[in-house]
Amino acid sequence: MAPLPVSPLARPLPILPPLAGVRLATAEAGIRYKGRTDVLLAELAEGTTVAGVFTKNLCPGAPVTYCREVLQGGLARGLVVNAGNANVFNGVAGMRAVEATASAAAKTLATTADHIFLASTGVIGEPLPAHKIVAVMDELHGKLAADRFAEAASAIMTTDTFPKGSTRKAKIGGTDVTINGIAKGSGMIAPDMATMLCFIFTDAAIPAAALQTMLAKSVESTFNSITIDSDTSTSDTVLLFATGQAGNKPTDDPAHLADFRRALHEILHELALLVVRDGEGAQKLVTINVQGAVSHASAKRIGLSIANSPLVKTAIAGEDANWGRIVMAVGKAGEPADRDRLGVAVGGTWMAQAGGVVPGYDETPVVQHMKGQEIEITVDIGLADGRATVWTCDLTHGYIDINGSYRS
Amino acid sequence: MAPLPVSPLARPLPILPPLAGVRLATAEAGIRYKGRTDVLLAELAEGTTVAGVFTKNLCPGAPVTYCREVLQGGLARGLVVNAGNANVFNGVAGMRAVEATASAAAKTLATTADHIFLASTGVIGEPLPAHKIVAVMDELHGKLAADRFAEAASAIMTTDTFPKGSTRKAKIGGTDVTINGIAKGSGMIAPDMATMLCFIFTDAAIPAAALQTMLAKSVESTFNSITIDSDTSTSDTVLLFATGQAGNKPTDDPAHLADFRRALHEILHELALLVVRDGEGAQKLVTINVQGAVSHASAKRIGLSIANSPLVKTAIAGEDANWGRIVMAVGKAGEPADRDRLGVAVGGTWMAQAGGVVPGYDETPVVQHMKGQEIEITVDIGLADGRATVWTCDLTHGYIDINGSYRS
Repeated sequence: MAPLPVSPLARPLPILPPLAGVRLATAEAGIRYKGRTDVLLAELAEGTTVAGVFTKNLCPGAPVTYCREVLQGGLARGLVVNAGNANVFNGVAGMRAVEATASAAAKTLATTADHIFLASTGVIGEPLPAHKIVAVMDELHGKLAADRFAEAASAIMTTDTFPKGSTRKAKIGGTDVTINGIAKGSGMIAPDMATMLCFIFTDAAIPAAALQTMLAKSVESTFNSITIDSDTSTSDTVLLFATGQAGNKPTDDPAHLADFRRALHEILHELALLVVRDGEGAQKLVTINVQGAVSHASAKRIGLSIANSPLVKTAIAGEDANWGRIVMAVGKAGEPADRDRLGVAVGGTWMAQAGGVVPGYDETPVVQHMKGQEIEITVDIGLADGRATVWTCDLTHGYIDINGSYRS
Repeated sequence: MAPLPVSPLARPLPILPPLAGVRLATAEAGIRYKGRTDVLLAELAEGTTVAGVFTKNLCPGAPVTYCREVLQGGLARGLVVNAGNANVFNGVAGMRAVEATASAAAKTLATTADHIFLASTGVIGEPLPAHKIVAVMDELHGKLAADRFAEAASAIMTTDTFPKGSTRKAKIGGTDVTINGIAKGSGMIAPDMATMLCFIFTDAAIPAAALQTMLAKSVESTFNSITIDSDTSTSDTVLLFATGQAGNKPTDDPAHLADFRRALHEILHELALLVVRDGEGAQKLVTINVQGAVSHASAKRIGLSIANSPLVKTAIAGEDANWGRIVMAVGKAGEPADRDRLGVAVGGTWMAQAGGVVPGYDETPVVQHMKGQEIEITVDIGLADGRATVWTCDLTHGYIDINGSYRS
């Protein structure tokens, strides 16, 4: 198929500064794509700690199974990512491809395979030609440099139409640390996880257990609160690497890590929304606020029911503030709700309250809001104080175009 | 929007014979549509028993709330159905519209309102102009006749592209009885219920409780096993009326009702598949068999996860036997599964077994099968004996066209 047009919701890639302890390189391995980079190698300094969160899909790819295992050690020296083939559902051959890649990277970076992390994205169920990755390992090693984050963000793309990155500074005990994140993903995106792939690097010194706690918590309200198409990838991976080169005193004290947590959360939030902005066929970014539910978890489930409703998403694509479909999606969520208490607002204008149209409702501001690129829906369940926000995009012809012919 | 082209999967309406104790009439009330019938009145003989199954959506329409209540009596004398407005989320005004319609129909049919059943389908959240229904009640009464099932099937359509009906004969204790069913629905179709509307009439004499048992059981593997778009309507209704005019001795003995049960199930199955054949934008009818799951319920949930996956459905639209996406959908169902035991067959050809591609797999017959109108997918979970079959359609540009502009 022809190259996809860049999403109208795209954002420019920010400048991601070099980070002490991280060197990157990309290459064209020709796994599936021609004339573009498709492999990323990251070299991480001795002593780098690592945290990870993975797909909850019960048929995960071989790289996910592998990463879950090596993550137990809490230490990382390298990361290899390829785009074009997800190495999923390949049985024994899948694990062999993982071992061949990890072993080659370990040799190149003079470490052991259990310090190498792997991620693959692309087609499912076709054997991954690991030899093509192994073949460019020397080239990658020769090109390793600290200022290649932009190239890294591009090399991991599949149906993405723009590279995605985010960067923040934070202070830990008076020392400045930097965090850079890159992500890819635009389809097969649903909790849990929604990434599909996200790699975050920092020069901070933080023990692996503390990293893991912070990452898991922030993912819940960022990557696990977005959905493109309700389909949960088999390969979703978020990895967070901390090289410890910034000079801060290593700490796992939550009070000392408050500013780092804030910065990490901002990066995850920004990257998650960039993934929605690149949702397959997306023309509009949709924020769904649910309030008044019986709990925060209930509010999130209602929000995702709305966000995953094809009828709500096609209505938004048609710029129709069809609150009837929103009410339907609330009701099908199976969570406590009472139609006679429900309220629905679009763009800050309440269309319905207490189970019916607001008397004298004037649709003018709502019609105007629906024509914009960023749509905000608020649903008041009217029962208690549970609240949550989830994000999605509209469902358009572009989604059908992309997914009706992805393999061809 | 322009009239929709008739689904390529359409089936001709069979001849539905007159049934003793049932008279029907349709009229143009002009609720939403112009130049077509949009109201159905059914008159049912004194002593008609009734069973019903309704949407599980927690924000149901006023007619559903009303029917659940009057169903307690187990007796029916009339049915009024309108198309174009679902009378959902209209608060007190919604209940007033229900009362006005039921009261007018009761007067016309010389009965009481608690013997009148109602169903509405169409737009949600706009007040139902019940006065337009009341205004044609005399006209409907004058036109009541036994041979109007075909007209009834047409009057209840919304985005349907063809009318749907099914008829069977059965024997109860040596007496021939007849069952006719009509249904409508092509979007906002998911368990539970998936109808959206289905009305079945028989001249058999069967107590309401026995009718209810048979109906509820058969709906589970028919209307509750189909999905178009995973969205559960607020209005789904199946009503079964038994006029008792065929002359059989009334019975609730399951042994005596075996043949009736068989015939009723066949009608529900046929109507449910007709609804899928008229799925919004459908180009292909998809049958998904799941076997080897830990239970039948688990198999059904896995089947629905596959059937509701936008990525699976768009792949089928693209005639791509993308078993990677099927594996993904199995994994995201959250049911027990082991990727290393999974098998996937399309059109009877096993593409994958024991977690990987079948050695020497030749895709020729699969490619051929995917070009057809009826697609069959079989997934073997490989764990136990649970099995289920669910039905869906592909996801095409037609769905986006219809739902991106439904209200305009």
